[in-house]
Amino acid sequence: MSEVRVHNFSISLDGFGTGDVQSADAPFGHAGERLHEWMFATRFWDKTGGSLGADNAFADRNSVGIGAEIMGAGKFGPPGWQDDADWKGWWGPNPPFHSPVIVLTHRPRPAIEMEGGTTFHFLDATPAEAIEQAKTAADGKDVRIGGGATVIRDCVAAGLVDHMHLVQVPIVLGRGVRVWDGLEALEDSFDIEATSTPSGVTHLTFTKRR
Amino acid sequence: MSEVRVHNFSISLDGFGTGDVQSADAPFGHAGERLHEWMFATRFWDKTGGSLGADNAFADRNSVGIGAEIMGAGKFGPPGWQDDADWKGWWGPNPPFHSPVIVLTHRPRPAIEMEGGTTFHFLDATPAEAIEQAKTAADGKDVRIGGGATVIRDCVAAGLVDHMHLVQVPIVLGRGVRVWDGLEALEDSFDIEATSTPSGVTHLTFTKRR
Ligand SMILES: NC(=O)c1ccc[n+]([C@@H]2O[C@H](COP(=O)([O-])OP(=O)(O)OC[C@H]3O[C@@H](n4cnc5c(N)ncnc54)[C@H](OP(=O)(O)O)[C@@H]3O)[C@@H](O)[C@H]2O)c1
Ligand SMILES: NC(=O)c1ccc[n+]([C@@H]2O[C@H](COP(=O)([O-])OP(=O)(O)OC[C@H]3O[C@@H](n4cnc5c(N)ncnc54)[C@H](OP(=O)(O)O)[C@@H]3O)[C@@H](O)[C@H]2O)c1
Repeated sequence: MSEVRVHNFSISLDGFGTGDVQSADAPFGHAGERLHEWMFATRFWDKTGGSLGADNAFADRNSVGIGAEIMGAGKFGPPGWQDDADWKGWWGPNPPFHSPVIVLTHRPRPAIEMEGGTTFHFLDATPAEAIEQAKTAADGKDVRIGGGATVIRDCVAAGLVDHMHLVQVPIVLGRGVRVWDGLEALEDSFDIEATSTPSGVTHLTFTKRR
Repeated sequence: MSEVRVHNFSISLDGFGTGDVQSADAPFGHAGERLHEWMFATRFWDKTGGSLGADNAFADRNSVGIGAEIMGAGKFGPPGWQDDADWKGWWGPNPPFHSPVIVLTHRPRPAIEMEGGTTFHFLDATPAEAIEQAKTAADGKDVRIGGGATVIRDCVAAGLVDHMHLVQVPIVLGRGVRVWDGLEALEDSFDIEATSTPSGVTHLTFTKRR
């Protein structure tokens, strides 16, 4: 059975997946790059110098067996990207997804085919409908929910996620979009493990109970 | 120099130090005892059967070198305890503090001397004034901020805490009193370490940078 997975989603100690205010110059707001420094230091990210320790082992699971991604409009571009007919995402001509990507937005546009196997499809639909489409596009492989926090918590709250990997970074952001809101009693449906690593982060894994 | 310390303060993944609604029957609201199960399993708590592992090593630091505690009205009793002239705390005739305890409340009453060295003093004052009084009472030893979340975050926000030990438990409470509110950028003044242990909790230690 194809699964729905979240990987490498970084949050602050107080649970924010992005800071305030998101803009073209500051995609993560006042969080800057601090939510992802742990990842930049892994071989997963830095193919020549990155470390092969515990952080890398978790990070590397990101793409294994994935056939499609779903992301929110807030991940695809800065506020207002829908007004820019030429906006094709943050990632240049050859985005790192190499699969169909469904972008959830209330202002959909025609699909964009990029280099390297990535095609962006724009969809105004419920999380359940998006996942159904993504599963079809994934052709038997798993579907990754790529973020941001809003889309992840909507999919988790709707009971649609099988596995979630969050990475808690030792900073207190104080403001932004919080991943926990609306997820009371998550422990009733998931086995939860915590693994802190020498870099100072804690990997939280949620495995749906069967 | 005498230090101000927080120990064994348990929070949910989403940062709540107590659930909703606090009452005489449910001191931690809907959290019940779940925030403290990790502690009940340690030798620190269970003198005959408790484990001597990592959780116990952290827990045991609670009383070492402490000469006084400060707690909030919400820890001392259920909502409305100020209307009960006979209320002497949750802990029976011989409370586990064995030191002066300052209870911060807007409705102070005369001090109560208990067995075993605990005296409850009731004070309507700023966190800084309470800590000054507690340091005098502690006679050169350290002062523990015993909770709840409101008093801890007020003392941390005022820059008055030297060391904080939080224990993150793998549950999502969704509501209650959150310890993180108002503590943005805590990483600027504290070194932060995370240590997850086999019981499933993660110990977060904050050491004030000098
Ligand atoms: N921490 C991490 O590891 C990580 C990972 C990825 C991204 N991020 C960051 O997270 C931020 C974005 O997160 P976010 O929570 O603000 O936004 P988001 O989850 O990316 O997107 C939310 C937006 O997507 C659209 N949308 C969501 N569900 C929809 C539905 N069912 N139907 C139609 N449209 C829907 C809506 O936008 P419209 O109404 O405008 O169309 C909504 O405002 C960015 O700063 C990004 O850089 C962080
Ligand atoms: N998670 C843990 O490890 C842990 C540890 C200890 C306690 N707890 C739980 O935490 C809960 C209590 O936490 P809480 O955040 O609700 O309350 P709290 O921090 O214990 O107390 C807050 C109250 O103390 C009084 N107060 C605080 N600062 C004051 C000041 N400067 N001057 C005068 N009065 C002041 C006010 O009460 P009044 O205005 O009513 O006087 C205020 O509402 C309880 O459920 C307790 O069981 C949890």
